[in-house]
Amino acid sequence: MGKDVVKVALLGCGVVGSQVVRLLDEQADELAARVGAPVELAGIAVRRPQRHPELPADLVTTDPAQLVARPDVDVVVELMGGIEPARDLLLDALKNGRSVVSANKALLAEEGEALATAARESGADLYYEASVAGAIPLLRPIQQSLAGDRIRRVAGIVNGTTNFILSAMESTGAGYADALEEAGRLGYAEADPTADVDGYDAASKAAILASLAFHTRVTAADVHREGIRDVTATDIASARALGCSVKLLAICEQVDTAAGPAVSARVYPAMIPRSHPLASVSGAFNAVFVEADAAGPLMFYGQGAGGPQTASAVLGDLVAAARNKVIGGRGPRDTAYAHLPIQPMGDVRTRYHVNVDVHDRAGVLAAVASVFAEHEVSIATVKQEGGKDGDDRGHGDDGPTPATLVVVTHEASDAALRATVEALSGLESVRGVASVLRVEDLGRPASALGGAQ
Amino acid sequence: MGKDVVKVALLGCGVVGSQVVRLLDEQADELAARVGAPVELAGIAVRRPQRHPELPADLVTTDPAQLVARPDVDVVVELMGGIEPARDLLLDALKNGRSVVSANKALLAEEGEALATAARESGADLYYEASVAGAIPLLRPIQQSLAGDRIRRVAGIVNGTTNFILSAMESTGAGYADALEEAGRLGYAEADPTADVDGYDAASKAAILASLAFHTRVTAADVHREGIRDVTATDIASARALGCSVKLLAICEQVDTAAGPAVSARVYPAMIPRSHPLASVSGAFNAVFVEADAAGPLMFYGQGAGGPQTASAVLGDLVAAARNKVIGGRGPRDTAYAHLPIQPMGDVRTRYHVNVDVHDRAGVLAAVASVFAEHEVSIATVKQEGGKDGDDRGHGDDGPTPATLVVVTHEASDAALRATVEALSGLESVRGVASVLRVEDLGRPASALGGAQ
Repeated sequence: MGKDVVKVALLGCGVVGSQVVRLLDEQADELAARVGAPVELAGIAVRRPQRHPELPADLVTTDPAQLVARPDVDVVVELMGGIEPARDLLLDALKNGRSVVSANKALLAEEGEALATAARESGADLYYEASVAGAIPLLRPIQQSLAGDRIRRVAGIVNGTTNFILSAMESTGAGYADALEEAGRLGYAEADPTADVDGYDAASKAAILASLAFHTRVTAADVHREGIRDVTATDIASARALGCSVKLLAICEQVDTAAGPAVSARVYPAMIPRSHPLASVSGAFNAVFVEADAAGPLMFYGQGAGGPQTASAVLGDLVAAARNKVIGGRGPRDTAYAHLPIQPMGDVRTRYHVNVDVHDRAGVLAAVASVFAEHEVSIATVKQEGGKDGDDRGHGDDGPTPATLVVVTHEASDAALRATVEALSGLESVRGVASVLRVEDLGRPASALGGAQ
Repeated sequence: MGKDVVKVALLGCGVVGSQVVRLLDEQADELAARVGAPVELAGIAVRRPQRHPELPADLVTTDPAQLVARPDVDVVVELMGGIEPARDLLLDALKNGRSVVSANKALLAEEGEALATAARESGADLYYEASVAGAIPLLRPIQQSLAGDRIRRVAGIVNGTTNFILSAMESTGAGYADALEEAGRLGYAEADPTADVDGYDAASKAAILASLAFHTRVTAADVHREGIRDVTATDIASARALGCSVKLLAICEQVDTAAGPAVSARVYPAMIPRSHPLASVSGAFNAVFVEADAAGPLMFYGQGAGGPQTASAVLGDLVAAARNKVIGGRGPRDTAYAHLPIQPMGDVRTRYHVNVDVHDRAGVLAAVASVFAEHEVSIATVKQEGGKDGDDRGHGDDGPTPATLVVVTHEASDAALRATVEALSGLESVRGVASVLRVEDLGRPASALGGAQ
């Protein structure tokens, strides 16, 4: 309390860290005025100092543990990523009363409880706005601005790489592989894109959002996760025909079940109506809808990644943590009091778009429809493409012409849909289930942008 | 510190206050868990108790000063509106260490400095998220999330009544008077709509936003203000012809002038491109763009008014203030360290759409164009409507046919445009300047929704 300077240990100095260093320097006077004392770097821990000739040599260290343990350090800013050694370093820091600012979504999603407990016990602050949706102020609004409301749903586009790929597929008609290559060439996808395209990144963010929104610990393992590798140009075209776009969504909901309230957290590509504001979020932008009982629908939009953008969020947290060190305040504590159970994915209800490849012969539609009915999946529309009455694909064999039944269902449980797909695959007249994509209305959030009021 | 219950004095119990009472009751357990102690009403000050039979009689008082002075009160929630007696009550409360939550934009815009000083001196909290843009978390993101960034512009639609009226004029072709009547009938406009339609409400909000964004005290009197009373169906049609919509904008910018940085804060109706996300914010919704150096463009969208919506923002602040009472924390202090001057309106540069009614005779265009040129207002496009070559309006007199020159300028200073308009009115061939509307590109904020990346 009453510190006349706030000392910061920076762990990691890559794309984001180097921007933090730059902004701390360029904005030194303004930050001091906002904090009430100068904010200074105590040290910068990097793995390969020779790669950072621009950093002041006397600040650079390869020993993050020693840096974190220094008695003059007030706040630790962690931008290393990954679980270890970040986890141990931050737990040590918090236990010793150092406040922590982190952009590490994987760590927060996995070890959020341990970190929050350590912070609470020592009275240190733990901020991680930069871990979700880059520059967009999102965690602070959810945790603080909406602290007097009941949040029902947080749903949005929280991964820029996959949104870039899906936007490119939609605008150019390209397939997944080509769009991914383009994303890589333009710097929107990493050499190993697994964390993005398989939904791990979005799942970590969903876990963090669900934890804050529903006052319940949700880890990445609790989040149902499907990536975009299997999304085809045909899926995008099917979506377009339905008036929809395909987006990788992170959806966190509080749902009412027979056993009481529960949390559903899931990440998957889904068709959404093109009239929905999220459908027009293109390229590497992020946008998140939040719906609360009293506040109604809210939307937050901005750049979800990038060095300066993420650094902006880091510095906002750093100012808060530093200010608290100077005036003796405390940031908000995690409030995971609700302990809601996670709704099993099998119980989650959405609509589905299913392409069933069939042999076009009498009775095939009836047979397929019966399978849906047996599993209590109600069909909203069905359309045949190809086959005798459709495109002549020039198949010269003697058997029935191949055709595709495009089925859109009413809301059904994931379990029922899966059982339906399995049973369809066993039908003699079915050649295979070519694709299954969810259709999300996202509650048609009250008009939203451009809608009627 | 260490309080086992947080006592709240509620001043005013109208549309918002009654929702605060309801939510405090319905969410009592959740709020207690989030705060760390129960939050209870100590009393409710109203003017006419007989109008509130639903309130517990033992809580109701007609003496707000006595309520605020009660030693058991921890937080004062002010929803009375207006300058007095709210000002004196809140200053007393803050001086005595009571934290204050207020939705009173007029008071904050006028007396923000006195209130902030009182809060700082006693260590009490002062929160007012609900004073701008209803349910939308906006002040907390600007003041806290972006505390490590340099905000350049805050621009948006912050008054639902005028947005409803302008949306109605645009969608139905109605004139201002009819659209206002419709808004009144549907409950979107008050019996005396002055505060909304003349821009006072938006100007107060602009003052609050500019103060926080630029760390400079800006009062409502510093905000250039024009309302929507003079917007005509013809203006709306002209805007449409230009691919624009007319919106009442609150614009707060940090600008670079010859004398150094300054703040521009202004409220006026302006044409904005229909492709801009703000153009599709219709009805009573609010949306605000924030642009910061590192974060880039951000957008916040939601319901800007309404009882439950505003109560959500009030309760978010109340939880923060209550939590600080329990754990001994402190909210962010106002940081008005920058003391930037206000840019005179005459120096503000925008584009303009000007309708000049003329006598259609040889040389009129040259004469008009010369006046623009003399005042260094560069013309981007000019189009003649009516006149001999245009619509035949059936004027049977002997003189030249009336016509209208529709001029769109490049960026010019407000002073130059005003001088131009004055000089035009003195031209023999000019019958009058029928309308002047600004055209705002709003910096075409980086693609934003629906734009390219």
